[in-house]
Amino acid sequence: MSSVGFIGLGQMGSPMAANLIKGGHSVKVFDINKEAVQALVSAGASAAATPAEAASDSEFIVTMLPNGALVRSVIFGDQGVTSSMSPSSLLIDMSTIHPFETDALVKDMTAAGFDMMEAPVGRTSVHAIKGELLILAGGTKEQIARAQPLFECMGSETVDAGGAGMGIRVKIINNYMSIALNALSAEAATLSEAIGLDFDTALKVMSGTPAGNGHFKTTWPGKVLAGDLSPAFMLDLAHKDLGIALDLANQVNVPMPCGAASRELYSIARAAGRGRQDWTAVFEQLRVTSGLEAKIK
Amino acid sequence: MSSVGFIGLGQMGSPMAANLIKGGHSVKVFDINKEAVQALVSAGASAAATPAEAASDSEFIVTMLPNGALVRSVIFGDQGVTSSMSPSSLLIDMSTIHPFETDALVKDMTAAGFDMMEAPVGRTSVHAIKGELLILAGGTKEQIARAQPLFECMGSETVDAGGAGMGIRVKIINNYMSIALNALSAEAATLSEAIGLDFDTALKVMSGTPAGNGHFKTTWPGKVLAGDLSPAFMLDLAHKDLGIALDLANQVNVPMPCGAASRELYSIARAAGRGRQDWTAVFEQLRVTSGLEAKIK
Amino acid sequence: MSSVGFIGLGQMGSPMAANLIKGGHSVKVFDINKEAVQALVSAGASAAATPAEAASDSEFIVTMLPNGALVRSVIFGDQGVTSSMSPSSLLIDMSTIHPFETDALVKDMTAAGFDMMEAPVGRTSVHAIKGELLILAGGTKEQIARAQPLFECMGSETVDAGGAGMGIRVKIINNYMSIALNALSAEAATLSEAIGLDFDTALKVMSGTPAGNGHFKTTWPGKVLAGDLSPAFMLDLAHKDLGIALDLANQVNVPMPCGAASRELYSIARAAGRGRQDWTAVFEQLRVTSGLEAKIK
Amino acid sequence: MSSVGFIGLGQMGSPMAANLIKGGHSVKVFDINKEAVQALVSAGASAAATPAEAASDSEFIVTMLPNGALVRSVIFGDQGVTSSMSPSSLLIDMSTIHPFETDALVKDMTAAGFDMMEAPVGRTSVHAIKGELLILAGGTKEQIARAQPLFECMGSETVDAGGAGMGIRVKIINNYMSIALNALSAEAATLSEAIGLDFDTALKVMSGTPAGNGHFKTTWPGKVLAGDLSPAFMLDLAHKDLGIALDLANQVNVPMPCGAASRELYSIARAAGRGRQDWTAVFEQLRVTSGLEAKIK
Ligand SMILES: NC(=O)c1ccc[n+]([C@@H]2O[C@H](COP(=O)([O-])OP(=O)(O)OC[C@H]3O[C@@H](n4cnc5c(N)ncnc54)[C@H](O)[C@@H]3O)[C@@H](O)[C@H]2O)c1
Ligand SMILES: NC(=O)c1ccc[n+]([C@@H]2O[C@H](COP(=O)([O-])OP(=O)(O)OC[C@H]3O[C@@H](n4cnc5c(N)ncnc54)[C@H](O)[C@@H]3O)[C@@H](O)[C@H]2O)c1
Ligand SMILES: NC(=O)c1ccc[n+]([C@@H]2O[C@H](COP(=O)([O-])OP(=O)(O)OC[C@H]3O[C@@H](n4cnc5c(N)ncnc54)[C@H](O)[C@@H]3O)[C@@H](O)[C@H]2O)c1
Ligand SMILES: NC(=O)c1ccc[n+]([C@@H]2O[C@H](COP(=O)([O-])OP(=O)(O)OC[C@H]3O[C@@H](n4cnc5c(N)ncnc54)[C@H](O)[C@@H]3O)[C@@H](O)[C@H]2O)c1
Repeated sequence: MSSVGFIGLGQMGSPMAANLIKGGHSVKVFDINKEAVQALVSAGASAAATPAEAASDSEFIVTMLPNGALVRSVIFGDQGVTSSMSPSSLLIDMSTIHPFETDALVKDMTAAGFDMMEAPVGRTSVHAIKGELLILAGGTKEQIARAQPLFECMGSETVDAGGAGMGIRVKIINNYMSIALNALSAEAATLSEAIGLDFDTALKVMSGTPAGNGHFKTTWPGKVLAGDLSPAFMLDLAHKDLGIALDLANQVNVPMPCGAASRELYSIARAAGRGRQDWTAVFEQLRVTSGLEAKIK
Repeated sequence: MSSVGFIGLGQMGSPMAANLIKGGHSVKVFDINKEAVQALVSAGASAAATPAEAASDSEFIVTMLPNGALVRSVIFGDQGVTSSMSPSSLLIDMSTIHPFETDALVKDMTAAGFDMMEAPVGRTSVHAIKGELLILAGGTKEQIARAQPLFECMGSETVDAGGAGMGIRVKIINNYMSIALNALSAEAATLSEAIGLDFDTALKVMSGTPAGNGHFKTTWPGKVLAGDLSPAFMLDLAHKDLGIALDLANQVNVPMPCGAASRELYSIARAAGRGRQDWTAVFEQLRVTSGLEAKIK
Repeated sequence: MSSVGFIGLGQMGSPMAANLIKGGHSVKVFDINKEAVQALVSAGASAAATPAEAASDSEFIVTMLPNGALVRSVIFGDQGVTSSMSPSSLLIDMSTIHPFETDALVKDMTAAGFDMMEAPVGRTSVHAIKGELLILAGGTKEQIARAQPLFECMGSETVDAGGAGMGIRVKIINNYMSIALNALSAEAATLSEAIGLDFDTALKVMSGTPAGNGHFKTTWPGKVLAGDLSPAFMLDLAHKDLGIALDLANQVNVPMPCGAASRELYSIARAAGRGRQDWTAVFEQLRVTSGLEAKIK
Repeated sequence: MSSVGFIGLGQMGSPMAANLIKGGHSVKVFDINKEAVQALVSAGASAAATPAEAASDSEFIVTMLPNGALVRSVIFGDQGVTSSMSPSSLLIDMSTIHPFETDALVKDMTAAGFDMMEAPVGRTSVHAIKGELLILAGGTKEQIARAQPLFECMGSETVDAGGAGMGIRVKIINNYMSIALNALSAEAATLSEAIGLDFDTALKVMSGTPAGNGHFKTTWPGKVLAGDLSPAFMLDLAHKDLGIALDLANQVNVPMPCGAASRELYSIARAAGRGRQDWTAVFEQLRVTSGLEAKIK
């Protein structure tokens, strides 16, 4: 069992720290919110008056804070973690912050002689309570192995994301996709209702197509990911159908800005001569438009 | 077994007509492309010189054409279907056209004393060949039952979409969602590559979250669809994470117009006071913004 | 003075026809709205019962209708213009319709041996009443010269747009720009208010910059239009400032979808290596992204 | 004549500092780039080794730096401005930074007993050289009056933006509008070329309409700004024309994401029942969608 300094006892941090205690670890907590600290103390933690105090004599320091500026100030600020942390301890930032902030923190910590990894989490506070978070670990294999006993108290699955900075990167990509998709789903569902279509019927149909299952495991593997752009469903036809949907939405006054934006990406692909390629070519085209090297000739 | 007039022998229509022949139906075909007609004749069809000829003495007339203007001209134009079709026959438009064009055709056919339903198809030409299309039937229960023997030759599943015009509506909603999602997926995958993240790692993570599985069967049923907007994942946090992703993308020059558009929908929800509601509230908000009545108080 | 058949007596057509009468022309009018016809008859027109009747014995036939499908039906439908129009007369479509519909009409009219030009109008019904419309003439120099006496009754300025189909094209480009700009202006003004900035101060500043005066006559002529992309204002800096504005808007919940979309165009330009070029390079880049040949090396 | 500490000698700062010297002021300069410092010394400045040194004994300290984090570090960091600045001196930040960063700096400076205002600049480095910048002054009347002799060396016009933080706000609003407008202009010009329209003709027409002159001084004053939404040009018609333009663009493969986004704002306005109001109602609607109180009943 280890000693852990835990900083940031919000909706996520509180249950995570509680689960570390339940797991038998010795936990010292800090938060600017005294009530949150008190609640954890009642659950078996000891209270620290500063980040420095939480870090001193702790083998692990965990930060779970709202944003990168706060993480930085808690680490490097007055009475910060680094003023007392041992070089043999490991700091684990589990907050969701900007990946370039993570990179800078790792760089600065390393330069200052400290050990740091990041391990942002997937899922929600409900999972935090149950100890069923998804741990997205960014660090060396050694760092991840060392932290794994802690992760097992807080989560039910650890993903080795592939090195320092990759944990937060996969977190951001995943959230990007799910958050934007939530809005896109709202567009489809609202249009459905506005044109008088029973949503359960729509759901039933979509549950058997990429509309409901995504493209990553359905249309992409055999096509764009395999380097094959011969058309299973021609990009020009996708563009046509999208045009029908957008016209319809505009006639019934359902704003569909995500879909409208997506059509312009198809236009870019068509302008690049991809109209008769498979619709998954929209990915290869966006790669090229982003300055990445073309993969498929 | 029935007599079928089939008009439109392209990538989709040709294998569909061939499967009707294989199913034992007597098929008369028309297309402005003589070679396509010839190929079907070799497969056992008889050739018609006009839509009218294809329609005469046929219990069913199927149209499978590129757009609504062509469907209308084939039905009501010179030598069109209605100049010879029997009032006791059933016309089935299987093309993907604008739902309002379908509505107008059904109205005009009914006014002229003819029987019409629509049955656009899901999946691709590969499925058309195998007779495994998804048939999205828009019509009365009687019309669908009557057409079912034909659908069974061409498809492996028929969905009763809920009445006239609903088949094409569910087709368009499904395609909207899958086509826009394809573009959104391209954004996530391109950003992943641009920031040096192994895409397989991203896929692995997303395959366990709404990013990979969609929201319709994961986050929505217990929340917005159940009328509960208490936060499992707070809308403000979703907005924050999306902001990080977009900032990142802009720094590495990956255009993400769909995601950028989606953020503005979250802004609308926040402006409406939904920041501390569940992120699925973006759907309820879009409903309201579209002029639909609020469902959740 | 000429004989004119005028079809379409709405908000625009009624005052235009009235001004032709005032100008001394002999006008025969048709509209499906009998009251509109009656009002013009009171003003000195004669009534026609069909488009054909309005066209017969008229040297000019003017159409001013809501959309292209109606224009086509009025010209080629039952009792349409072409059933009575003389080959020596000139049909002038002044409606705002899709340019490809105009092209098709001109082609079909020519094939049928008739003379047609288009002349959509700029400005509003207020100008229509005063006879101060902007006439955007698409046709041969001869057609325009022939129609000019009519245009002078209805408008205060005629632009020779450069040939058949160019009148409607310039109309659509102009309206695209002004309509989208209206929405973009709303974004800037709303953000201004949301951040507590006096809008008059904003207006005062913008009235001296491209924000208020546009780029066409300010930043573009010396730069991208002159083939010079050396930076007066670096594209990277524009991208940075836009990012500040969008972040600000997102913090105060002002949705700015146009601006958000524009940032992605700057990302495309940056991905193409144009970050250190002049910001007007966004035009050259969009040209290339649209498949047009690069003009500036 | 005054003593000025000038920090940040880039494309803008160098000529601005040089103009202060020409104006007779005594200027001490600091930049991390030694060559930039050297060049100014040759022009008559004295060199400072740190921000603190530049600030000591200077009545004014000017900062002209790339972003807010740098401005903060130069002011409050090690050897920063505040370690030597006199409470009777005035710090003027002329950089373009995030308005909330400006607000925080002003707050922190005031709390620390220092005097600060912001004065970002409009126009470009060409104008910086000529001393013809547009000075957007955010501060009290006293601060602005005190700084005016300096502004007169660097610029040709000073705008009193209305108080602390308002200079940077008006700068950001102005830049938002001009930068997004640049991209929108690119869309219109590219579409024009793609449909074969002579751009000079387009320019000629637009130079007489809101497309070329903006809405702030043309359509808005008599309508939405005057509280009058009776239609001079009906919002529904604007939406229709925009739809034509977008359809056209999609057919010729010109991506127009800004225009596409703008159409969705018109949809929102239509959904809110504004279709028959004046098109300038898109502003009032966006205000309401942003959570601002409706102004027009
Ligand atoms: N809530 C979720 O569902 C969820 C899911 C995954 C990831 N996350 C991420 O987890 C992190 C924490 O989220 P949360 O929901 O617990 O946030 P929260 O706002 O509930 O908690 C943040 C805590 O940090 C504390 N804090 C702020 N400044 C501090 C400082 N200077 N020193 C010490 N403590 C300080 C606050 O008092 C608060 O208790 C965020 O980065 C969030 O994006 C949240
Ligand atoms: N291809 C797919 O994967 C797919 C999937 C689902 C739905 N659809 C829809 O199915 C319909 C047909 O698609 P397709 O891929 O077969 O198109 P296609 O272009 O391959 O075939 C269209 C056929 O219609 C014929 N045609 C055109 N005008 C005609 C006329 N006036 N009279 C008679 N025939 C005429 C053409 O000659 C051609 O053979 C479209 O509406 C399409 O959106 C296609
Ligand atoms: N209103 C403006 O400010 C404005 C400005 C420039 C251009 N325009 C364009 O001018 C055209 C006319 O606009 P409007 O504002 O006068 O429209 P409107 O709706 O007021 O008038 C259209 C008229 O056409 C008539 N009509 C419809 N179908 C007909 C048919 N089959 N036969 C005969 N008449 C028929 C209607 O009864 C009506 O009187 C449109 O294309 C519009 O885009 C309008
Ligand atoms: N260039 C323009 O046309 C223009 C127009 C209006 C406003 N602005 C704004 O003016 C500001 C300056 O722009 P610029 O074009 O001169 O940028 P620049 O990049 O040319 O110059 C920035 C200068 O700051 C110096 N610097 C960076 N970090 C420093 C530090 N810690 N201490 C001291 N010096 C440091 C750099 O060495 C450099 O000389 C920016 O905020 C920009 O947005 C620029």
